[in-house]
Amino acid sequence: MNDTISKPDWIAVDWGTTHLRVWLMDNRGEVLDHRCSDQGMGVLARGTFEPTLRAMLSDVPGAKALPVIICGMAGSRQGWAEAPYASVPCPPPGVAQATRFQVDGLAVHILPGIKQDTPADVMRGEETQIAGFLAREPTFDGILCLPGSHTKWVHISAGEIVSFRTYMTGEMFALLGKQSVLRHSVDTTEWDQTAFDAGLSDTLSRPADLAAKLFSLRAEALLHDLSAPAARARLSALLIGAELASAKPYWLGQQVVVIGTTQLANAYHGALAQQGVAVRSADVGDLTLEGLTAAFHHLTGGPK
Amino acid sequence: MNDTISKPDWIAVDWGTTHLRVWLMDNRGEVLDHRCSDQGMGVLARGTFEPTLRAMLSDVPGAKALPVIICGMAGSRQGWAEAPYASVPCPPPGVAQATRFQVDGLAVHILPGIKQDTPADVMRGEETQIAGFLAREPTFDGILCLPGSHTKWVHISAGEIVSFRTYMTGEMFALLGKQSVLRHSVDTTEWDQTAFDAGLSDTLSRPADLAAKLFSLRAEALLHDLSAPAARARLSALLIGAELASAKPYWLGQQVVVIGTTQLANAYHGALAQQGVAVRSADVGDLTLEGLTAAFHHLTGGPK
Repeated sequence: MNDTISKPDWIAVDWGTTHLRVWLMDNRGEVLDHRCSDQGMGVLARGTFEPTLRAMLSDVPGAKALPVIICGMAGSRQGWAEAPYASVPCPPPGVAQATRFQVDGLAVHILPGIKQDTPADVMRGEETQIAGFLAREPTFDGILCLPGSHTKWVHISAGEIVSFRTYMTGEMFALLGKQSVLRHSVDTTEWDQTAFDAGLSDTLSRPADLAAKLFSLRAEALLHDLSAPAARARLSALLIGAELASAKPYWLGQQVVVIGTTQLANAYHGALAQQGVAVRSADVGDLTLEGLTAAFHHLTGGPK
Repeated sequence: MNDTISKPDWIAVDWGTTHLRVWLMDNRGEVLDHRCSDQGMGVLARGTFEPTLRAMLSDVPGAKALPVIICGMAGSRQGWAEAPYASVPCPPPGVAQATRFQVDGLAVHILPGIKQDTPADVMRGEETQIAGFLAREPTFDGILCLPGSHTKWVHISAGEIVSFRTYMTGEMFALLGKQSVLRHSVDTTEWDQTAFDAGLSDTLSRPADLAAKLFSLRAEALLHDLSAPAARARLSALLIGAELASAKPYWLGQQVVVIGTTQLANAYHGALAQQGVAVRSADVGDLTLEGLTAAFHHLTGGPK
């Protein structure tokens, strides 16, 4: 870190289950400094959020009521302070809906997540990425696909989140690939695109067979020398294929934007393109920070 | 342990990935003593199988060429000595197909597993349970369902294993229930049968929605106070329902015997009964030991 930190105008915080990311910002939206740690909600006890954040800011020149805008799991019931969910349909919640409080020198705003009653679903953090996307493309109408541990499909219309659905595909891929009997067969970081494409077509045409086909990866590795890159790509295809079969109402005949350019996001993009979907990827830097910045601008009446 | 162990006539061994079970047997099929440990194949290095077994038998009066009959993962490529798979259709392999060798004072017989080329599938250990079942019901014609981490559906006809299919349902239930985001919602050992029945019908009618419905358990716990016993039963119903949808050719219009009376086995029994299947449970003590005993009798020409 610099030993001469400029005085920030506000602090942006993305506080998830496994990570804490902090940006020192000026009021034009420029990043003065950036810190991150693994002090996510999952390892923090009640009452330790404030000291954890203060430790991250210990070298920052003080200010009276420095605005802090936070998104993510810090607003959950087990977090710093609960920010009750907004309900769809709604725009991504801003500072007007935030849970606000003052603690010595900090004016904390915790942004709410979003809930959907039927089918029951929730998000905390993604709504701020969506706010960042809409800050850039305010007239977007269509589907956002946010790949991750818990991939979200989000229907956006007229600046509002209309409905969404969460799939545990990424988490299942990690659990099956690292901790199940399949870990021996998929132990690689390589990727076999041909195996992915074939597995995807197969799963999309018979999605109910997912449960049967998983163990076949192990058996084919033992009996037919299925390679690790092919097994890993096929595992991903089985899971993403089952997801796409179920999420078809979200993408069939729709404009879809896949958020991100990770290997996982690229797999979704390729799978949707294979199905003839009008899909593009948003190579978006850090949408969460853009969403937090949009919230700050609402607080202050716009960029200075 | 007794300090006066009768001299056994043979040793029965079930050596799986996570466990080692040893029975000291007389030649009438009576158990003289029983030991078990967690020295499964998963924690053993090459070359440590023999000393591990000898340590389990250290107090056993010696014998020249004491027969040892072993089933399970000890016969895999990473085990003590490979016992190459038999191929379906075939009866459960016996000592004639075993990998045999002598080590000081022990005449080791490792029973083979079974493979199926298409769809690719394998078993090691279950074939010996099946041998035990067929020793008891030699004319059985129908389907065996062996619930477990990797549930097997096995078509038996004329004393042969005709075909089989493995589902990772039990392992997925454990991974999702203990290690995924759902662990908070299903943290109980209680069971809500009504929730299981409703979830099963729902999944069987729309099996492709499995991927979507998993995260809903978390969301319904957060939003609608879904109880932990209901969430746990519904998680089981989602996974077993998807399995039953895929395994329908195995059970529709068939005689099905569910092996075991664990909570998991009872869940399969109930699910099949709900679908109108002619199902019974085999309350079978230890089928593996019965299968190993049948193999010993083949070795010696029958019970004495």
